[in-house]
This record gives sequence, structure tokens and C-alpha cells, in this order.
Amino acid sequence: MNRRIEELRSWMEAEAVDITFIHSPENVFYLTNFLTDPHERLMGLFVFRDKEPFFICPGMETGQAADAGFKDEIIGYGDHENPFQKIEEALNSRGLGTIQKAAIESELLSYARAEAFRNISGSPRLVSAEEKMNELRVVKDQKEISIMEKAAALADFGVETGVAALREGVSEMDVLAKIEYELKRKGAQAMSFSTMVLFGKKSGQPHGNPGTAVLKKGDLVLFDLGVVLDGYCSDITRTVMYGEPDDQQKAIYETVLKAEMAALEAAKPGTRIGDLDKIARGIIEEAGYGEFFPHRLGHGLGINVHEFPSMAHTNDGLLKEGMTFTIEPGIYIPEIGGVRIEDDVVITENGAQTLTSYPKELQIIK
Amino acid sequence: MNRRIEELRSWMEAEAVDITFIHSPENVFYLTNFLTDPHERLMGLFVFRDKEPFFICPGMETGQAADAGFKDEIIGYGDHENPFQKIEEALNSRGLGTIQKAAIESELLSYARAEAFRNISGSPRLVSAEEKMNELRVVKDQKEISIMEKAAALADFGVETGVAALREGVSEMDVLAKIEYELKRKGAQAMSFSTMVLFGKKSGQPHGNPGTAVLKKGDLVLFDLGVVLDGYCSDITRTVMYGEPDDQQKAIYETVLKAEMAALEAAKPGTRIGDLDKIARGIIEEAGYGEFFPHRLGHGLGINVHEFPSMAHTNDGLLKEGMTFTIEPGIYIPEIGGVRIEDDVVITENGAQTLTSYPKELQIIK
Repeated sequence: MNRRIEELRSWMEAEAVDITFIHSPENVFYLTNFLTDPHERLMGLFVFRDKEPFFICPGMETGQAADAGFKDEIIGYGDHENPFQKIEEALNSRGLGTIQKAAIESELLSYARAEAFRNISGSPRLVSAEEKMNELRVVKDQKEISIMEKAAALADFGVETGVAALREGVSEMDVLAKIEYELKRKGAQAMSFSTMVLFGKKSGQPHGNPGTAVLKKGDLVLFDLGVVLDGYCSDITRTVMYGEPDDQQKAIYETVLKAEMAALEAAKPGTRIGDLDKIARGIIEEAGYGEFFPHRLGHGLGINVHEFPSMAHTNDGLLKEGMTFTIEPGIYIPEIGGVRIEDDVVITENGAQTLTSYPKELQIIK
Repeated sequence: MNRRIEELRSWMEAEAVDITFIHSPENVFYLTNFLTDPHERLMGLFVFRDKEPFFICPGMETGQAADAGFKDEIIGYGDHENPFQKIEEALNSRGLGTIQKAAIESELLSYARAEAFRNISGSPRLVSAEEKMNELRVVKDQKEISIMEKAAALADFGVETGVAALREGVSEMDVLAKIEYELKRKGAQAMSFSTMVLFGKKSGQPHGNPGTAVLKKGDLVLFDLGVVLDGYCSDITRTVMYGEPDDQQKAIYETVLKAEMAALEAAKPGTRIGDLDKIARGIIEEAGYGEFFPHRLGHGLGINVHEFPSMAHTNDGLLKEGMTFTIEPGIYIPEIGGVRIEDDVVITENGAQTLTSYPKELQIIK
């Protein structure tokens, strides 16, 4: 059993949880190093306080689970079999006695599966394992950070590719397709979310969809993209000018950059997380654009592209060494366009380091 | 209220269901024509037997929901609000009396959300709405079929692009990236699943992952891909030879093609669904390759890339006009490679029509 499962067991001991049932691909990967998505098929890691854990997955994947390093029992099932029956047999064979309290991923496990699990395990009270899993995952170790550095370098390359593809008359989808094409050739295993390439006024919609709009002089161009590499995500935003910026475009850009740099500057172990949002928002409000920054400063980043910590002004938690998250203030003015600048950040012993490193000074493409 | 919601209400009447709560993007789209994915944010369509339905979604999307044609009340909520509180208010304002039985998507709704819903609605018994939704969705109307025809034409184009990119030394990921690039330029809104391009021995793994393997003479090349267009999916597989096939490659190919054509031939209204698998499997077994066809014949296709009906030999249902699904027999021999041929099919008045139309005779690329 590895250290991560041991930590989960310590929590189970403290909370008197008899069984924890983990089924999401993200948390299974975190706890077992086995990275897979069985889609509609069930998989599950079952952890006990004083017995060895077991893992169940579709039969064709048991070999890969073992190769990934899971040392305890691995149970496979076929498409014609009911995995809950196999789980029931495995529970019975362990002689667990009365199960009073079980932890599940209650935000992720379906109602039907939660009920099926409850039925085979003696109707225990169900509690959530999610808070503990989030707490375990929120601080990254060196191996995780080094994968995230590589994923961030690919994100930098994505922006570089997009900027290089800008020319009058090219469409948002053309540039987007070019970026994803080059990233896949370079080893990105997937995009971590739908790539955004927005021109001109469309950059003024925080959730705009790329389409057939074509590039013209005077457009702001916003790129927001990221990749998945070995189970970890990156997420970068850069905004550049196509042609000369007017005074307002320049003012918006400089304000967002100042806000982003100030939040970065303040990020270090012990800082209240919500203060980073306040610092960035304060600069944007002072410049008169407060109403045009409608979202939180950022989000945790790791196995999920959105995870803990939430970089919202209400977050009273403190930054810790090893936390990874985005800092991404923005200003969006519907009729003019928008600017967002986003870096992936890791908290270090004395401060913060950006994982993304594409330049941030206003770039004017002619 | 539209015909689809009316049909759901008839079922609620027959089953004495007081409320149906539909939250999945697929079923919301089917019932309201509003196509969106609010990710971790909740949305919900609430249908009653004798009151007008209402729809709740993130505040920034209410306008789009109305534009999509939803005529009844639309409730928006902000990120700082609890949507279940808004749902509770909306339920109370309708004066529903005691709610005894509520239907949810029990395979899709999380345990936490099911419990939150139960708590605000007077702890009704929860039943599944999924069987009914699947039954409604399994037969497509003309509008749905015409979108699926366009999605299938893009899938054909994807294979054509992939075949055109084959040359000695090119990698699987190179070809994959080229296919997705050209499809996005041509209007595909997303891929309907992870595109597969497999060379040589890797084509012999039914779930192989494309990588850096390079193409060489004598390789079978397997393409499996599909796109999403206006909410509907396509899904095609074609296998071609790079260089001259040997006798075994030829024999495998001809067997799979014969099996696919025979299943297609048998598909018409009234045929037992499982018989299509039996017919194709019989041909493959007769040729001595039975053990190398480890999966079901195909799957339903529509808003989801895998939906009902399941084209497994155990399915005792009967084909109906308007059903859409894949037929995709395959033979996979680990050390030699694999062949799969997959079409998207719609059942017509007297038979079946393929939506995909890329040629199926063995193609030898030199």
C-alpha cells in the first residue's frame, strides 16, 4: 500500500469510516497510479481500515492496473457480469462484520450506483470522501510538479503556434485547428478543455465560442488552451493585438497585466488565498474596470483542469508549498473586446513560480 | 410544451410519477432543444403531470435557453446562490401538495444531488426516468436523421483525409492530427470520441491508443472516428492496407466485410436486434476467427455516441423504423493486426440505409 492510501486510512480511522469506495478516474489515478477512463463501465478502489484494499475494473484492464503498480488484489469482470455482485463477494470474503459508515465520492457517484453499493454492504450510512481527497490532492509532490511543468511548456508552445498563425482573413477555427494539430504532433495526449481562439469583439465574452469570424487589423486576439500530459493538465491564456492598439485596448491590457503580476507577487506560503483575488480585483477596480471582471481570479489545477483550491475572494484558506493553480484576471468590454492573462503557478518555499512562461508584454502583430 | 415533453407526461400519468427532474445535457437537449454543457453547475428541467414545467440553469444561459425555444418559466441562478433553494421556491410556488414519487436520471445524477433534491421535495420515492427517456430517444425523427447524415458525411471526409495522409514513415499521431485539423476546418464542432489511427500490429488491439509508431509497407491501417454536429454524433471505422496484403490480411478483411454486409442486409423493421450480431458472428466463426471478435456488433448512435439500442446478441428487442446505430464487426489478431468495418445505419420503412458511405472494398495504398 502506498503513502496516499495510508493517508486515506488515517482519515478513515479518525472518522470511523469502515469502507471507502473510490470510483472516479481522477481519484483512482491519484491513489493507484492507474490512469484509465472506463467510461460507462464501473471501476472501484475499496479501502478498509484494517484489511488490504482491492481494486475492481473491466477484465481487459486488470493487466494495466497491475503494471501501473497496484500491489493488492485486482478483480476483473466481463461485460456479461454484474460488478456489484463481484464486489459483494470480495467484501464477504474479507469478513468485515457490520459496516456502519462508508465513504463515497458523493458528488461524482451516481445515485443508482450508490444505492447498489449500499444494498450489498449492509445499508451503511454514506458520507463523502471528497473533502479528504481534495485535501490530499491539493498539495503536489515533486513528481507531479515536474509533469505539470512539461504540460505547461506544451501550453506555451500552443500559444506560440497560434500567434504564428495570425494573418489577415484567417478564421478563429483555422487558428484553433492549427494549434491543436501542432500540439498533438508534439505529444499532447489531449486538450484539457475546448480551446478558445477569439478575435475582436468576441474576446469580450468570457465564455465565447470560436467560429468562422476572420481576423482584421485592430482586433484583440485571445488564446485560452491547455493540454493533458500523463494525467495532469495545463491551462494558459494570452491576449495579443493584431495591428496597432488604440488607447483603451492598451489601458485594458496594462491593467490586466499589472493585476496579474501583483497577484503573483503576493503568492507565497501563508498568504490567505482569497487575498490574491482581492489584490488583482483592487487594481482593476481602481482603473475603473471593476464591473468588467466578472469571474474569480483562478482555480486549482492538477489532475482536473478545475480543482482545489478555488482562487475566489471568499477563500479563507492559506497557500501552502506545492499548491498549483491558475492566476487569470481579465477585463471584458462587450463592444471592444477583452484581455485575459493566465499563468499556471506553483507555490514554492518562499514565493511562487510560474509553470507557463510565454511572454506577457503586449505583443503587437503586424 | 412540445410533443416530447407531452410523451414524458403521459408516462408520468401511467406510472403515477409526480415530478420528473432531468439534468443531463443530452436529455435536456432532447426535451427542450437547448444544447449546452454547464459542467459542474446544475441545470434541471422539472416536469409535472398537471402543471407547466420549469427550467433552471446558470443565470448567464437563460437567454440562450429561451432562444432555443423553451416557452415555459426559465429560472437563472448566480454562482453565489444555491440552485436547490431556487428549485424549492419554484416547487412551493406551484402548490403541488404531497410528492410521493419522483423520477430522476438515476444512472447520471450524483448521489449528493439526488439527496439534495429529495430533501427539498418532501422525501419522495425516487425512480428512474432513464428507461423512458431511452425509449423516446431510440427512434429518431426526420430532423434528427438529417443532422446525422451531415455528421456521417463529415466522418467519411475524416477517413478520406486520413487515407490521403498515409505515406511511409508518417506517425499515427501525425495522421490523427491532420484528420482532426481538416474536420474542424470543415465545421465539425467536436470529435465524438478520441480518434483512433492504428498501424500494423496495433490495429490488432480493439482499444489501442495512437502514438508515435510509424507507417511501413505491409501494415493494416485502422481509422475509427466521428464528429459531433448540432448535438448528434457520427462514428465510422475503415481499415485499409498500406502496401500489398498477405493472404491472411486479405482473408480477415474479406471475412469482416462479408459479416458487415450480411448484418446490414438483415436489418429491417421487425428483425430481432440480437440476430444481427448472431449473423455477423456466425460468418466470422465459420471462417475460424470467432475468438478474435471479442465485442458486440455495435451500439445505438444519436445525441450520445453510445446509446440505445445495444447491438448485442442478447438484445431481444425488435428493430423499428427510425432507429440509428452502428454495425461494426472486427477481427483482431494480436501479432498480425486487426480489421474493423463500421457504418452508421438508420432503419427505413423496408430495410436499412447507411449514413456513412466511404467505400468498403479493400483499398491498397502504395
